[in-house]
Amino acid sequence: ASQDLLLAAAFVSDAQYNRNIPFRTSPEAVRLYYLYNHWIMRTVTYFFIFLNLSLAVFEEPAVYPLPFLVTSLIEVLCLLVFFGRLTHFAKVTLRNVFWKDTKNICIMVAILLSLTDLAIYGVLRMYNMRSIRWSRIVRPIFLINFAESRQIRRAFRSIRNTLPEITYVFLLFMFSLLMFSLMALKLFGERNLQTAEGLPYFKNYLEIVFDLYVLVTTANSPDVMMPAFDFSSWYALFFIAFVIVNTYIFMSLFLAVVYNNYKKHLKNEIRKLAYMKHRKMIEAFNLLKEEEGAQFVVREARWKQLVKLVAPDISNSHRELLLCISDNEQKGFIDKKSFVQLADLLNIQVITLKIRSHPLGQWMPRVYKSAVSRFLRSMVRHRGFVWTYDVIILINAIFIALDEETPYISYAEWVFLALYIIEILLKVYTYEPRAFFGKNQFWNWFDTLIIFAALTATVLNTTLKSTTKYNSQQILDIVFILRVLRLIRIVDSIQRFRVIMNTLINIVPTMLTFGGLTLVVYCVFAIIGMELFHGKIQFFPASSNVPHALECGNPALKDSLFARGKYCKNNFNNFASSFIVLMELTVVNQWHDILCGGRSRLEPAKLYFIAFHIVMVIIIVNIFVSFILEAFFVEY
Amino acid sequence: ASQDLLLAAAFVSDAQYNRNIPFRTSPEAVRLYYLYNHWIMRTVTYFFIFLNLSLAVFEEPAVYPLPFLVTSLIEVLCLLVFFGRLTHFAKVTLRNVFWKDTKNICIMVAILLSLTDLAIYGVLRMYNMRSIRWSRIVRPIFLINFAESRQIRRAFRSIRNTLPEITYVFLLFMFSLLMFSLMALKLFGERNLQTAEGLPYFKNYLEIVFDLYVLVTTANSPDVMMPAFDFSSWYALFFIAFVIVNTYIFMSLFLAVVYNNYKKHLKNEIRKLAYMKHRKMIEAFNLLKEEEGAQFVVREARWKQLVKLVAPDISNSHRELLLCISDNEQKGFIDKKSFVQLADLLNIQVITLKIRSHPLGQWMPRVYKSAVSRFLRSMVRHRGFVWTYDVIILINAIFIALDEETPYISYAEWVFLALYIIEILLKVYTYEPRAFFGKNQFWNWFDTLIIFAALTATVLNTTLKSTTKYNSQQILDIVFILRVLRLIRIVDSIQRFRVIMNTLINIVPTMLTFGGLTLVVYCVFAIIGMELFHGKIQFFPASSNVPHALECGNPALKDSLFARGKYCKNNFNNFASSFIVLMELTVVNQWHDILCGGRSRLEPAKLYFIAFHIVMVIIIVNIFVSFILEAFFVEY
Ligand code: NA
Repeated sequence: ASQDLLLAAAFVSDAQYNRNIPFRTSPEAVRLYYLYNHWIMRTVTYFFIFLNLSLAVFEEPAVYPLPFLVTSLIEVLCLLVFFGRLTHFAKVTLRNVFWKDTKNICIMVAILLSLTDLAIYGVLRMYNMRSIRWSRIVRPIFLINFAESRQIRRAFRSIRNTLPEITYVFLLFMFSLLMFSLMALKLFGERNLQTAEGLPYFKNYLEIVFDLYVLVTTANSPDVMMPAFDFSSWYALFFIAFVIVNTYIFMSLFLAVVYNNYKKHLKNEIRKLAYMKHRKMIEAFNLLKEEEGAQFVVREARWKQLVKLVAPDISNSHRELLLCISDNEQKGFIDKKSFVQLADLLNIQVITLKIRSHPLGQWMPRVYKSAVSRFLRSMVRHRGFVWTYDVIILINAIFIALDEETPYISYAEWVFLALYIIEILLKVYTYEPRAFFGKNQFWNWFDTLIIFAALTATVLNTTLKSTTKYNSQQILDIVFILRVLRLIRIVDSIQRFRVIMNTLINIVPTMLTFGGLTLVVYCVFAIIGMELFHGKIQFFPASSNVPHALECGNPALKDSLFARGKYCKNNFNNFASSFIVLMELTVVNQWHDILCGGRSRLEPAKLYFIAFHIVMVIIIVNIFVSFILEAFFVEY
Repeated sequence: ASQDLLLAAAFVSDAQYNRNIPFRTSPEAVRLYYLYNHWIMRTVTYFFIFLNLSLAVFEEPAVYPLPFLVTSLIEVLCLLVFFGRLTHFAKVTLRNVFWKDTKNICIMVAILLSLTDLAIYGVLRMYNMRSIRWSRIVRPIFLINFAESRQIRRAFRSIRNTLPEITYVFLLFMFSLLMFSLMALKLFGERNLQTAEGLPYFKNYLEIVFDLYVLVTTANSPDVMMPAFDFSSWYALFFIAFVIVNTYIFMSLFLAVVYNNYKKHLKNEIRKLAYMKHRKMIEAFNLLKEEEGAQFVVREARWKQLVKLVAPDISNSHRELLLCISDNEQKGFIDKKSFVQLADLLNIQVITLKIRSHPLGQWMPRVYKSAVSRFLRSMVRHRGFVWTYDVIILINAIFIALDEETPYISYAEWVFLALYIIEILLKVYTYEPRAFFGKNQFWNWFDTLIIFAALTATVLNTTLKSTTKYNSQQILDIVFILRVLRLIRIVDSIQRFRVIMNTLINIVPTMLTFGGLTLVVYCVFAIIGMELFHGKIQFFPASSNVPHALECGNPALKDSLFARGKYCKNNFNNFASSFIVLMELTVVNQWHDILCGGRSRLEPAKLYFIAFHIVMVIIIVNIFVSFILEAFFVEY
């Protein structure tokens, strides 16, 4: 019976958290399954996944170089952990299910590939031969394929479902691009025009296609138009037609296709999840059911044992509340229909609004209930209190904008800090502290954390300054940022702004999924980019005396837009730089300049950037926009 | 009775075309109303509206200068026509309705303002005093406010409804921008950094706000980041956070707000239109009804007279079909419920698919039905025929891309032209010509028009060349464009592409509304821009010997990005140039460079651009995207 209870609790827990792992039901398998889902095991797995991904920071070309032996040992350790986790999973799940699941095969292949590559690279290195660490590209597979990353996998599934339709629109878009390029070749090719850099204008078909692709992203507007426009004003019509058709209509069409699929996919996923949840709850019910008259039910005592197992943290009163809802006629048992709802009930956040008296009121009732104290508390509860502090925040904002060097302004900062601390103390004095720091009191937590971080940092900085006469730049920067962040609170005072802010705060967790998606794409492209473009461009600080420092160490870049824009630090020389370049490419502006700088052969760079643009901008950014649209429609 | 019929026909016609003018019902008012709605009157009105708008091309600063007397006479003529149209409308509609309608008041005020301004300007001009033609800014009012421009007014109404919500999001966005600017001032202001042009970096708060506003539009990415990034790589995080929050989240939020309102507004408008339509049809019914048993009905003979009045062009068989639907039990009369549907029935396009025999089959049956002829026709109907021509089109595309100068390639062009003509002749030989050139045979029309235009232009050009040894560049350009356009037809062969293309073709009419909207906004901004920035920058052809020709005639622009990018032709010196600059500003890229070039005082330029960006990009482009999204969801 206790075995059944444990098994039923596992089913309910799976239903509650939308897990979908077909585990074996033997007692030791269930125990292993509990261990598998334990938060420590999950955290350790994620830790090693991110450790494995961040190895790129320490491997050549490194931001912080570590010896090859160290990085390879860490990688082997990571792979061992992944293998252990996979073995654990194999023991939990059914054998044929395990081997049919491509996720597991993917992880195994990735582990094997990584080990093989590591061994080959190590051996070649011993003989002083250099080779490529190509297996680093498979590292994001671990992030995607472990059973925990359901959200990221769902996003990838959504992308896969969108692909066919995207492809049709993309082909049509490419067709339009090729047609316009053909027209451009015919219209401008024989005019002997020159670009602003004195290069021939629109002479070569493939270059025209690329230039017009860049124009679709708007990055070379209006430069690409100017030579033709200078020749005859009427030619502007060609570019206007091009931008309307390709930038406005086709790019909107991409968004429409992605958004349409996103909505459809979301609906399907929600339907599937609801079905899986229902099935798991039925299985749990069948394990615990007893006969009662004509129907099967779960008795109250069993039900309570189950809830204690599934949710050990909830209070007795919370559990009684759940029981009241499930057995609302107080018959002493729960029928099938009510039982199935348990998974959803457990997910509802219950706020215990006990009217607790203030602890100070219990410890020193005479002082706390005196006339002065009561006046103070009514004052804090008054709307004027909020308004006063809004005015103080505004004055603070003005002081921040003013020059820091004037002494009385830096003293004023202490005054503001003191005022904010007094505010928090007064509020804690007035409101019950446990309610004030409740789970969903976002702004209270926000205020308190910001103020105390600012206090700590300011004190630390002052101490450093008085003892060593040295301002720590990092600490000062953090103090500045905290000081400005504190001003955000004023938004909370206006109802309409609060609604929008709450919408934004609520979508943060899901936005992390996009963070994961972006991380995967960035990792892959950063590793390819480093292999292709590493070392082509160097950055030297302004004081450097190295020859060609201003041309990024590359004489070919003399007088290029790249060098003139001082873009030298936009390179693929290490993992961190690559990420920042990819971020700039996501923003799209100037990407053709960033890309063309110092690449001796341009064609691979062009293909690289077009591929990145399609994956990141056309697909992922559009999914992100769809997600914001949908979240806004649901929340607002 | 004939009066009632005329009145009822006016109601039905209004219902059919969704017109909503409360006209008087006296016989002469109804006759005037018919005249008011006549297509000639409407075309004339639109002609004068566009003539009035295009006056800006001929007035100082002019693209094609005309004497002041001529333009002012044309303007007075336009204003007279508008006044006449308004008087006509006043005679048609009820007096109190007329004076309550802001549209009419707007037009009258605009006429008065224009006349006053014209008079003042003329008088001052006689005394050689220059003043500003400020009333030119009210000209778009005529386009918006005449009763015919319902679509554009609806779009403006939609914008007005969106404004409150947009404003809240915009204020929050501005707050975020100001916060980030404050942080930037604190983080980078005291580092003594320099931009790529050697100017101080992030020193002045208002300049930071503007620079970061530009970054939201992505136009100065990554330039604005580079100095801080060069100083310390960690500062890139500030800009990444900025772009995520402001460019990605807030700009998506703007789209969400606009799209949400667009959908809501669309639903309301459709509901309102349906209600108005129903009411008009009931009024028409009440005019024509006769008693029949227990109910009121419209007799068949009357109904036919009515349909003949409302839709004089439709064929007898079409009318019989409508009657069949309305009186489906053939009782000889139409009841209220069926009668109300007439407006919608009239809007349904009926394709008369008569199986007519080919005229050639009637004229020379023996030849047309001979074995050779039948084989030919079955060949044309075969799918292989389409495929053959797709292959021919592809080969043609390759020939177009190849060099034109080689003689046998220019002969090949004649071969392709001949092949295309043969194709059309064969098709007309096979299919019934009237069906082939049916109203909704878009692609047949497209093919035929393109081919015959290309034929005409090619013949014209060859004639010119052989007689005068002179290639007309304009004709050649048109021939090129036509030749490339012909290639589009290949899209029609693939089912999936055809679906997307049809969606795009179907939304073209509504896109004209956005054309109108854009025209209004561009006109207003172009006229303001010309007053503010006229003459600051000059364009000289490359061969010019004028001093400072390379600096756009403005020594202050030496070494500026503006002059280096050869942007001299991007100026506000005339109406056409202003339009193109505004188009470039809509595309957003490089707008800060375009705008800052040569403006002695930058502040008005910055405010001008931010205003244009908010109106055009944040509101109108987002409405356009919403419209494409919605159209796609409905059609696809
Ligand atoms: Na851009």
